[in-house]
Amino acid sequence: MATVPWVPPCPFCEIVAGERDAVWILDEPEVAAFLDARPVFPGHTLVVPRAHIETFDDCPPDLLYEVMEASQRVSRAVQAGLEADGSFVATNNRISQSVPHLHIHVVPRRRKDGLRGFFWPRTKYPDQEAAEKVGAAIRNALPPARARESGRGAADDPTRRTGPD
Amino acid sequence: MATVPWVPPCPFCEIVAGERDAVWILDEPEVAAFLDARPVFPGHTLVVPRAHIETFDDCPPDLLYEVMEASQRVSRAVQAGLEADGSFVATNNRISQSVPHLHIHVVPRRRKDGLRGFFWPRTKYPDQEAAEKVGAAIRNALPPARARESGRGAADDPTRRTGPD
Repeated sequence: MATVPWVPPCPFCEIVAGERDAVWILDEPEVAAFLDARPVFPGHTLVVPRAHIETFDDCPPDLLYEVMEASQRVSRAVQAGLEADGSFVATNNRISQSVPHLHIHVVPRRRKDGLRGFFWPRTKYPDQEAAEKVGAAIRNALPPARARESGRGAADDPTRRTGPD
Repeated sequence: MATVPWVPPCPFCEIVAGERDAVWILDEPEVAAFLDARPVFPGHTLVVPRAHIETFDDCPPDLLYEVMEASQRVSRAVQAGLEADGSFVATNNRISQSVPHLHIHVVPRRRKDGLRGFFWPRTKYPDQEAAEKVGAAIRNALPPARARESGRGAADDPTRRTGPD
């Protein structure tokens, strides 16, 4: 698997290598998970590929499967293990990304826990034309789907197409 | 594929069915993406399974892969198409989930855009014992890995294990 060269010190590579302490949640061939030392709430877990993949964008498809499937298990576990009602699953991709090693935050959530998942001010498109223009800019920049190395890949699907203009 | 029965009106099912307007970004066999009508920033896109899967936790692994691989493409596209520097990729699982149909938010981010990905107050574990106790509660609640329907599955891997106690 292609990986970004590990340029130490990467704190998550150090944790994966056993050179830095952490409370481990998952220790698997492709994926590791451990508690964030400064949690939003207790149980806030970081799920990472063991390989030094810098960003969400860079993650190879097979590894993306592993990371997200593990995040799903951790999401269930923080709820079942800590009597939480839900979770927040998020990653900062480049901007606000404090460690340049892909990490998925899985944060247990409870009703009235004082957080709102999206409490940022929302805006509106001034009109439909403005929204259509933004949509077209995104669609025109879409990269091709990437197939998994194993199994049926999205790129193999001849019915796959971008949205209507 | 097992799906939660669609109980109308689900606004995202309506969009997928063409019964409600949206600016489409991706229209694929398993996945759809469209602009959030009330974006954090213009280009804020929601990536959804076409099937009415209620939550992140409920999503079958193969479909979760499709949704996340599409989210990765959308992440790249909002950056390339809108000259953004990064993205925020997140889902509210049950708590703060405004529509009970799994949706991944992909929000373009720029330096000094006024958002911080995690600007919630962070806390600390009072001591190592407290952190270890939380970690054990999560580990003990981990469900088994779920294999992909196609290709090598995580559950097939005999080296897979939970973290050290």
